Amino acid sequence: MSRRTRGFSRERELARLLYKRGFAVIRAPASGAKAKRVSYPDIVAIKNSVVLVFEVKTREKPCSIYIDKRQYMKLLDFVERSGGYGFIAVKIMDGRGWRFIPLEMVEETRGGNYKVSVEAIEKGYRLDDIVRLCSKTRCILDWAKTQLPP
Amino acid sequence: MSRRTRGFSRERELARLLYKRGFAVIRAPASGAKAKRVSYPDIVAIKNSVVLVFEVKTREKPCSIYIDKRQYMKLLDFVERSGGYGFIAVKIMDGRGWRFIPLEMVEETRGGNYKVSVEAIEKGYRLDDIVRLCSKTRCILDWAKTQLPP
Repeated sequence: MSRRTRGFSRERELARLLYKRGFAVIRAPASGAKAKRVSYPDIVAIKNSVVLVFEVKTREKPCSIYIDKRQYMKLLDFVERSGGYGFIAVKIMDGRGWRFIPLEMVEETRGGNYKVSVEAIEKGYRLDDIVRLCSKTRCILDWAKTQLPP
Repeated sequence: MSRRTRGFSRERELARLLYKRGFAVIRAPASGAKAKRVSYPDIVAIKNSVVLVFEVKTREKPCSIYIDKRQYMKLLDFVERSGGYGFIAVKIMDGRGWRFIPLEMVEETRGGNYKVSVEAIEKGYRLDDIVRLCSKTRCILDWAKTQLPP
């Protein structure tokens, strides 16, 4: 399976997990992937008017993940327009499963691109955390954000 | 232009209008239209965590619009999961432009399908109303809903 095919398969998996937990979910189209990358985040999930915006990544084991500046800025733009919360969703294939790293924990690199460190991945939210936060009000999510390590 | 092609063109037009007014906008993919109809509303637009969900229709002049039960239920499901507001967005081609009819004004027909009456279309929101409502809090939108004719 190519990395691209595997990526789509993980996006579908995450979309289903979120749908089962009561979210309204939109997955960017797999067809016309180039246009998609420019215009849309991989997944948008909404519950109780809390908007979660995801870019999905897959890795065999925890390692630093680099994100193209343009992709990051598009994600940030969507998050800011919607008033939502942005995450890099990482599926780690060694059995650890999903980790959700808030955009606030994504670091800018010297070259002007963006990076999720191994530490950030290990401290990332689990799916249950995400679901629990969304069953509360926005205020709780805002509070939780301040509790994250810098 | 076929009705389907015209429909996609109107969806793109509405998506652009909403984007220009500061919304985060997702448009369902034009490709694989059958799958799309089953899974997604035509347009989802979000601003200040207010989620607006649209099915887009085009008519030459105001007339009753019938909506398939399955399409209606999918729209309602998305609205309920997200905590958003559902609208039938009607572009009237005689120069009147867009009208947005809240789901609450959609009537059930005897056959179990759904209908937007000419009266509902004429009383529908304009684009400016929609934008204005979304720059306020959810509370204002909830209040506005109670002001609509039954």
